[in-house]
Amino acid sequence: MATRALFLNCTLRKSPSRSQTQPLIDKAIELFRLRGVESEVIRVIDHHIEQAYWEDWESDAKAGDDDWPDILARIMSADIVIIATPITGGMCSSAAHVILEKLSLLDELVEDRGQFAFYGRVAGVIVTGAEDGAHHVASRILFLMSRLGFTIPPNCETYWLGPAGTGPGYIQSHGERHFHTNKVLRYMVENCTFFARLLERNPIPTDLVRCAEEARAESDSEVTFKVNVHTPSLRYRRVQTFGPKGAAAPASDARDPEPVG
Amino acid sequence: MATRALFLNCTLRKSPSRSQTQPLIDKAIELFRLRGVESEVIRVIDHHIEQAYWEDWESDAKAGDDDWPDILARIMSADIVIIATPITGGMCSSAAHVILEKLSLLDELVEDRGQFAFYGRVAGVIVTGAEDGAHHVASRILFLMSRLGFTIPPNCETYWLGPAGTGPGYIQSHGERHFHTNKVLRYMVENCTFFARLLERNPIPTDLVRCAEEARAESDSEVTFKVNVHTPSLRYRRVQTFGPKGAAAPASDARDPEPVG
Amino acid sequence: MATRALFLNCTLRKSPSRSQTQPLIDKAIELFRLRGVESEVIRVIDHHIEQAYWEDWESDAKAGDDDWPDILARIMSADIVIIATPITGGMCSSAAHVILEKLSLLDELVEDRGQFAFYGRVAGVIVTGAEDGAHHVASRILFLMSRLGFTIPPNCETYWLGPAGTGPGYIQSHGERHFHTNKVLRYMVENCTFFARLLERNPIPTDLVRCAEEARAESDSEVTFKVNVHTPSLRYRRVQTFGPKGAAAPASDARDPEPVG
Amino acid sequence: MATRALFLNCTLRKSPSRSQTQPLIDKAIELFRLRGVESEVIRVIDHHIEQAYWEDWESDAKAGDDDWPDILARIMSADIVIIATPITGGMCSSAAHVILEKLSLLDELVEDRGQFAFYGRVAGVIVTGAEDGAHHVASRILFLMSRLGFTIPPNCETYWLGPAGTGPGYIQSHGERHFHTNKVLRYMVENCTFFARLLERNPIPTDLVRCAEEARAESDSEVTFKVNVHTPSLRYRRVQTFGPKGAAAPASDARDPEPVG
Repeated sequence: MATRALFLNCTLRKSPSRSQTQPLIDKAIELFRLRGVESEVIRVIDHHIEQAYWEDWESDAKAGDDDWPDILARIMSADIVIIATPITGGMCSSAAHVILEKLSLLDELVEDRGQFAFYGRVAGVIVTGAEDGAHHVASRILFLMSRLGFTIPPNCETYWLGPAGTGPGYIQSHGERHFHTNKVLRYMVENCTFFARLLERNPIPTDLVRCAEEARAESDSEVTFKVNVHTPSLRYRRVQTFGPKGAAAPASDARDPEPVG
Repeated sequence: MATRALFLNCTLRKSPSRSQTQPLIDKAIELFRLRGVESEVIRVIDHHIEQAYWEDWESDAKAGDDDWPDILARIMSADIVIIATPITGGMCSSAAHVILEKLSLLDELVEDRGQFAFYGRVAGVIVTGAEDGAHHVASRILFLMSRLGFTIPPNCETYWLGPAGTGPGYIQSHGERHFHTNKVLRYMVENCTFFARLLERNPIPTDLVRCAEEARAESDSEVTFKVNVHTPSLRYRRVQTFGPKGAAAPASDARDPEPVG
Repeated sequence: MATRALFLNCTLRKSPSRSQTQPLIDKAIELFRLRGVESEVIRVIDHHIEQAYWEDWESDAKAGDDDWPDILARIMSADIVIIATPITGGMCSSAAHVILEKLSLLDELVEDRGQFAFYGRVAGVIVTGAEDGAHHVASRILFLMSRLGFTIPPNCETYWLGPAGTGPGYIQSHGERHFHTNKVLRYMVENCTFFARLLERNPIPTDLVRCAEEARAESDSEVTFKVNVHTPSLRYRRVQTFGPKGAAAPASDARDPEPVG
Repeated sequence: MATRALFLNCTLRKSPSRSQTQPLIDKAIELFRLRGVESEVIRVIDHHIEQAYWEDWESDAKAGDDDWPDILARIMSADIVIIATPITGGMCSSAAHVILEKLSLLDELVEDRGQFAFYGRVAGVIVTGAEDGAHHVASRILFLMSRLGFTIPPNCETYWLGPAGTGPGYIQSHGERHFHTNKVLRYMVENCTFFARLLERNPIPTDLVRCAEEARAESDSEVTFKVNVHTPSLRYRRVQTFGPKGAAAPASDARDPEPVG
């Protein structure tokens, strides 16, 4: 079966409006195609996703008009999942956030595998933004996906950014001719492809249920913390000169008897 | 007494090497001067700062060649403190990190004021980087300073960035002609000046010692958490189709009886 | 007119379900009341907010069932705006993200004031989560609000967290008896109250339009970056030993002639 | 040859002081040993690492007392590299930051491999902190290492945290009995071991030099951005009511003709 990549385009613009992020996705799709990887794109904003915990999601009444089950099924049938998001307010888009939140609620182990549902899948990120925030957005997305079971290959973030300040986006700025973006796009495509196929032939064997059982044997089921309800005061002689406008802070001999880091 | 601004230039280059961040600091100094604010710059990397907790710092043996007490005294005599840092690896420089860490260890209340040592002071940030990360760096620095008692005026971050990918810095890229940077620089200078003078005439009255005492009256000095040592399993019917390559995850009726958010 | 605080409760649970964040908001409201501050709470998830750029928002067709204009009007009539959010997946909730994104799109100057719409208002944050992420969530929210014109007083973040790992929330864990949370809650309430009243009597005078005009006079309307389209290679003798399993990386004399930070 | 793990203990306490992070590292070492992985620990703060760009590092004068070359050699001879850091001020320690910064300066391709120096190695993170910040610290460290060529297996972050507020650390709080920490520690050890051996038998084949060449063929060597030097003004009718205390913002028909996300 062909390796499959799923792109979640998290633009805020509904179809058929132009998305700045889509042309970069299209480049990735073509590069994947040359390596025998089939791609699919979901434009998230075109769908209704209920922002809710699992309990609500389960209720039949709501499930009727919630596209999340279908989107999740398509995520689960992909080998490579790439979140593609514009930057708004220095963050990923709210459409991306909704996806990440829904994924993060799937933090339970699949019983007969002893693994999170996304084990064996590979994650990547595409970010487009006028100016700043690609590393921040990518680091949060990839870390969250890593915690959910995705493998993060090296150099699996692709981004385009203009210089400081709001300005024209990827399309108007001819982002398709931007060297750094075109370069890291290839890094991402090649590494995601390699890892997806590697993991298909070599499934991760870790049994998280057994790990948890071993951990339980050496852990407590209740944990108590002493709270320091005293207000600490500046206690070092050398700070005497640091009061506001000449006021001296009192010295003290109090000390931490234990290491703090 | 004139309002005073202190810039901590956190370049990794020692004097007299050229710092990319310094020309932007120089612009800020001139704008402050026009508003009657006196400025001082400390080039952090030229100094030896012991990376250590307070206990070690107190020891006379170490204090001999540690410039931190002098730097801290200059921070305490300033009304406006501006951390100016290049971006390395998507983060602030390690020189900036050392400063922030030393500041964060000053998280105790000055006894006769009932406030953190930095109350009444105003914070700002200058970031220069080839490509990305200014918002991330600024948000972490300003939040940490806010927690230590600094006031954060609106629009008190100034930054210069080129487009995606490593490239020439502020100096070679003529950052001094970059509109967004020149604009937000003025926002920062004007707002920091206004707030520094406002707080000098109107000291923050909050008595944190009294706050802590009130809190103590309604709090416990020990806190116990039940730990869920059972491994959760995917328990929703709708996930049946989400196993790897056709495997079905078992359904279950288990439920969270309580809200989680 | 009384000082007014607005809480945006960003729980994912719709009314009348119990929100873990609400009891902490209720504590804040009572503390504000004692200081003469009137409070209002909006439960965001009970409302429909269109995730869209302004252009779409303007269209009459959509505006019909979009609660954002009303929510924004209530934000604008508040002196203190507090985003209260649970942590999901290490992030703020998607409900909070939607609010922040909508706010971030208001990044234009109000013409006859020469300021962003939120100048003169004060921001605070409340975070509840099972385990980790309060500082991250608070730093991103406060920085975004700072860029939009809000003033960030010292110690204006209140949070409750349990120890590492998912577990019972604020309500079941008796978060209302947690010393740190009760302490910083008071810091936040007192500082937000002080700053809101201070700024009402002393409006921020900064004219951002004039700042931009001054910046324009010394800036270019077009900016060109040279792109290094050559692939750098490891060029330092000392790395010779660092190849994989004994392979030597070649030495080179290439050097950066210019400072990079 | 045995698989090798290197732990960089980034405590701020020099030997022989007790490090809170070390007992958790010791647990990891024992678990690795049971799987045939040999471990080594470097206590970073015991060493002198020059905070400098490569150019300075190359100078013979400085290299004399700089331990970085030796530490880097040991990193390069490891299959698994785990950054272990306490949290100070919500961040990793400055010792960890120095390591990350030095690593990030190694962002050049090894010529005869066409890959970054760290390709083929696996990264993990251990974080100990009194209260908050493990996800933030882990996400930044892992993302930076991913960009440098490390592979990030699923669930490769181990952390211990107490509840909100400063308090006793891992040792005094009996962190060694904390279920979540003991559980994710095993996830990390098993996944790092699996991936290190998998990549040894299946080296990543991606040729980054060729990727860059392909990218160059479709990219420009100079990029020009138009800068919007006009100050945007709030232009939507619906915002009329949002001025301060009743002032109306003027309407306008200006529109963005192009998508922004």
